Amino acid sequence: MNAARPRIYYFSRIDPPAMWRDALAGQLGDDAFDFIVGPGCAAPHEIDIGLMYNLPPEGLRAFSNLRAVLSLSAGVNQFDRTRMPPGVPLARSVDSSLAQHIVGYAKAAVLRYHRRFHRYERDSRAALWRFEHPRLNAQSAVGVLGLGELGSAVAAALAAEGFTVHGWSRSPRELAGVRTHAGAAGLAQLAGATDILVNLLPLTDETHGILSDALFSQMRPGSFVINMGRGGHLVEDDLLAALASGRLEAATIDVATVEPLPAGHPFWRHPGILVTPHVGGITTAATAAPQLAENVRRAMRGEPLLNQVDEGRGY
Amino acid sequence: MNAARPRIYYFSRIDPPAMWRDALAGQLGDDAFDFIVGPGCAAPHEIDIGLMYNLPPEGLRAFSNLRAVLSLSAGVNQFDRTRMPPGVPLARSVDSSLAQHIVGYAKAAVLRYHRRFHRYERDSRAALWRFEHPRLNAQSAVGVLGLGELGSAVAAALAAEGFTVHGWSRSPRELAGVRTHAGAAGLAQLAGATDILVNLLPLTDETHGILSDALFSQMRPGSFVINMGRGGHLVEDDLLAALASGRLEAATIDVATVEPLPAGHPFWRHPGILVTPHVGGITTAATAAPQLAENVRRAMRGEPLLNQVDEGRGY
Repeated sequence: MNAARPRIYYFSRIDPPAMWRDALAGQLGDDAFDFIVGPGCAAPHEIDIGLMYNLPPEGLRAFSNLRAVLSLSAGVNQFDRTRMPPGVPLARSVDSSLAQHIVGYAKAAVLRYHRRFHRYERDSRAALWRFEHPRLNAQSAVGVLGLGELGSAVAAALAAEGFTVHGWSRSPRELAGVRTHAGAAGLAQLAGATDILVNLLPLTDETHGILSDALFSQMRPGSFVINMGRGGHLVEDDLLAALASGRLEAATIDVATVEPLPAGHPFWRHPGILVTPHVGGITTAATAAPQLAENVRRAMRGEPLLNQVDEGRGY
Repeated sequence: MNAARPRIYYFSRIDPPAMWRDALAGQLGDDAFDFIVGPGCAAPHEIDIGLMYNLPPEGLRAFSNLRAVLSLSAGVNQFDRTRMPPGVPLARSVDSSLAQHIVGYAKAAVLRYHRRFHRYERDSRAALWRFEHPRLNAQSAVGVLGLGELGSAVAAALAAEGFTVHGWSRSPRELAGVRTHAGAAGLAQLAGATDILVNLLPLTDETHGILSDALFSQMRPGSFVINMGRGGHLVEDDLLAALASGRLEAATIDVATVEPLPAGHPFWRHPGILVTPHVGGITTAATAAPQLAENVRRAMRGEPLLNQVDEGRGY
């Protein structure tokens, strides 16, 4: 194996290979690496680096000399460790434009509810002019679940808009302009104080199913939920029940356990649910490439990766 | 007439009288003024101050001793001078929270198009998951027509979001972070460079009908228009034609010549048009009252008003 010339195995069902190959070439040099496009690989034991949003159908167990797996996404819970060589380091992608995408999506979704555009969309189709005095931003309380890099960016951006912002994380955190809560008791406090809930948690055993009746039933009647985390955070039947009871007025769903959301899914055509096709956060090759290229270099030198995932915490 | 005790005539079909009487009482004192609620007035010649969004059905010609008309709105083109005593000073309302309402509405409407929520709303009703890589804010150009107090606030706020912002005004202006244009040639430049057009012009003879085919035909195919100005800015048939041809993809209409928009109006139920019930800008009594109370005092002393309208310019 030639440490000077990394062999990179690429797999994605979203982005065309040239997008990432060209972005890496801009960083590492045009002829400085091999770029093998999956799924499928003739000589998996010769691959140094895996570059992917999620595991290819064949898994990575046959990639016996892998030095690193670089996720194209900020999330890594989709990487099933039992289908990867043991001990191979895994790194998240930290892309400066990702936070901008996520913050923009959160603002669009929060302002849509706060300014009642979701009602006007329906009223426009029914020829209904219903004036309601708009509320100032400070009169809406937004709760942000997850105060990692992305959740903190969203909470801070919404606070800068003048919203009353509550934030929740597993362990206590402080964030300027945001009322922070932690632990189970803190989650109940946040739910009771929130009009619009935005989920940006990582998916772990602790957060799986957190968007459930136990949480919704503590929220104010007529509240809103925006799931930008993962499909596994949401108990889908509990969401449908909370919408039916009026506990929730509406929900925006950007992520699902199975994507694309299947045609017969009850979220489709539901008057209280807006489905968006996982566009809240997406990695941009041009801005993500410098960190990925640096991790290619580090992996080839056997050094710790940037944004390497702690296997125990899962993020 | 007792200069120490103003007689205020109030007319509004939107806000309950108590809202404004209480807000003024908080500034002037509880028993410091008479508050006569229209429409209709037994002794119009005894009224000192008119307080209203628009003229009452009977007009104000019989109010022969009027010292001032205070608009509850930032806009004043609805005040037909021929139905008012000659020479009576007219003042706009400048409400610190109005700009916040307008900026919030503009962001909600712009982000909705930029992040394609208007497509996802339709796709959600049709069970369609259509992924499209989201664009960064800098990749959308927003054009703001009108760089007065409100237009400038919107342009600056959108520039702060990272959008590429163009601004247009009658006479040349400079605004940090905004590419400004002026005059007829400048309007064509702005139209050709803009993906999303936001109208915040005052309605004058010069701006009447400015949102017309002459403007739309210079815009990029598939652009968007958001009318937050006045109904008279828009040539409605030209908008429908531009939507039919694909020159415009969609439009948001917050203002109409006749409000509420009549039930049979072609904007209702149009798949490319979102109608909102004039909620972009609305005056909030609590934050508008200090300036209104100061203008009551000034009018009683015969002094020039704050935000007095230049009769020639019309704003």
